[in-house]
Amino acid sequence: MTTDALIENVHFRRDTMPVHDVGWRAMAANISDLAAMGARPLLATVALGMPLDFPQADVLELYRGMLDVASRHGCGIAGGDLTGAPELFIAITAIGEVRPRRVKGRGGARPGDIVAVTGALGASRAGLHLADNASMLNGELREQALAAHRRPEPRVAEGRWLAASEHVHAMMDISDGVSTDLARMCVQSHCAALLENVPVASSAVEAAKQRGEHAQAYALAGGEDYELLLAVAPRAFTHLSSRFNKRFGRPLYAIGRFREGSGPYVRQDDGEAPLPPTGWDHLA
Amino acid sequence: MTTDALIENVHFRRDTMPVHDVGWRAMAANISDLAAMGARPLLATVALGMPLDFPQADVLELYRGMLDVASRHGCGIAGGDLTGAPELFIAITAIGEVRPRRVKGRGGARPGDIVAVTGALGASRAGLHLADNASMLNGELREQALAAHRRPEPRVAEGRWLAASEHVHAMMDISDGVSTDLARMCVQSHCAALLENVPVASSAVEAAKQRGEHAQAYALAGGEDYELLLAVAPRAFTHLSSRFNKRFGRPLYAIGRFREGSGPYVRQDDGEAPLPPTGWDHLA
Repeated sequence: MTTDALIENVHFRRDTMPVHDVGWRAMAANISDLAAMGARPLLATVALGMPLDFPQADVLELYRGMLDVASRHGCGIAGGDLTGAPELFIAITAIGEVRPRRVKGRGGARPGDIVAVTGALGASRAGLHLADNASMLNGELREQALAAHRRPEPRVAEGRWLAASEHVHAMMDISDGVSTDLARMCVQSHCAALLENVPVASSAVEAAKQRGEHAQAYALAGGEDYELLLAVAPRAFTHLSSRFNKRFGRPLYAIGRFREGSGPYVRQDDGEAPLPPTGWDHLA
Repeated sequence: MTTDALIENVHFRRDTMPVHDVGWRAMAANISDLAAMGARPLLATVALGMPLDFPQADVLELYRGMLDVASRHGCGIAGGDLTGAPELFIAITAIGEVRPRRVKGRGGARPGDIVAVTGALGASRAGLHLADNASMLNGELREQALAAHRRPEPRVAEGRWLAASEHVHAMMDISDGVSTDLARMCVQSHCAALLENVPVASSAVEAAKQRGEHAQAYALAGGEDYELLLAVAPRAFTHLSSRFNKRFGRPLYAIGRFREGSGPYVRQDDGEAPLPPTGWDHLA
């Protein structure tokens, strides 16, 4: 059972995001939490607060966005509550089903485990910057960034598949950036981690270049990528990653190692440095 | 699974209600929805949006209020989401457990059935008016009105007991006033209802007298009493009510009859009149 709320002007702005995609993102954030538990989504409820002048067509578009992503993952919308509010907010609760012994949680990572992610990171932040400069990216890179930002795909099938493996010791979704979320996993697992090689989405590489920023920062500190972050037993990683690739058509990326100690570190040219929760930005 | 949201300055004002009781009311509204399904409450999640200057002590009091009423009914708080927001909002989702065949819904009332409620109505509205005039009520009447308004008791035990009876054909909670909620039950059940004799809480009688208003209006149109509204097979009512009285120490009130037709009516001196959703006020 999971709850996640989106608030206008805190989490999104209506002038830069279609209401359909506001609905999609709100629902995707909840379904991603279920994916991180290895759960099959069942039902969601929606508490929607809106200004009195919010157009009825926009209410329908908002629900269409929620339904579009929910239905892709077998999740129904069971009902909810509509109310007046000073600004738009969407609080969604979703319930899912998983065998208790498959639930990984964040506390199972062990020193020596591989830090892994289910996909390249940073595209959502590239998509966010498109709101400031719409012509920054073109073609496929533009599509990649917009889709990642507006219509992220929760990794439900991947989460259920990974939850079934005894070699996966911990799992969570990356909603606040890998630097922040890996720090949480380190705290819960009482260990440290060293990041060596984080895959950066091609749209993030290009957006960072155009903006004169570090592409690694997009991958480490950019939130809302909704890939899964895992701790995997080292001896099983190669086999698991190869089976993952066969099943999902893309690799399971090894991005570092857990070790004794506390908190996340990142490899730099001249050694390594502690990784603050806001990621690479503070190291630059 | 049920969801209900409270918004500052829409559903409550912080200057007239302690935050503890804001939390209580928000949780009670959700638990009351479970009671209406005859369900045993299990877990709730809380999405809380608050202004940046909302004091930490008030956050704790708010959760204390939620926990106080949840724990009385065996309901845990499983987690939730905290976020910044322009004004305080609390969106709660609760899940409960009930055998499917016991769920009554709103669509089962039949012509001839007794319209029944689990308690006297109107005290919550009397409590609301205490905010305007604190000296209006004293002693027990004051306590009754304040408790009904600020710390309503969801009828969980009553709902589960009534759900077990095959003679109860429909059940819902009275959150928006019996005139509004009975109209909903009539629509879902494709029938009409005539109200004859609605029990008015003693604090509502006194508050109405002091304000020069109709006490019946408090009972018919006042919201948030959270008693249960039922359709009961007529031949079984006397026996059911007597068993209810033995079990819960107060009567199950017969307040009218369902009949062929549509919508709710109310008995008046000179016959009967359709009951608008806002209740007696419009008839006065």
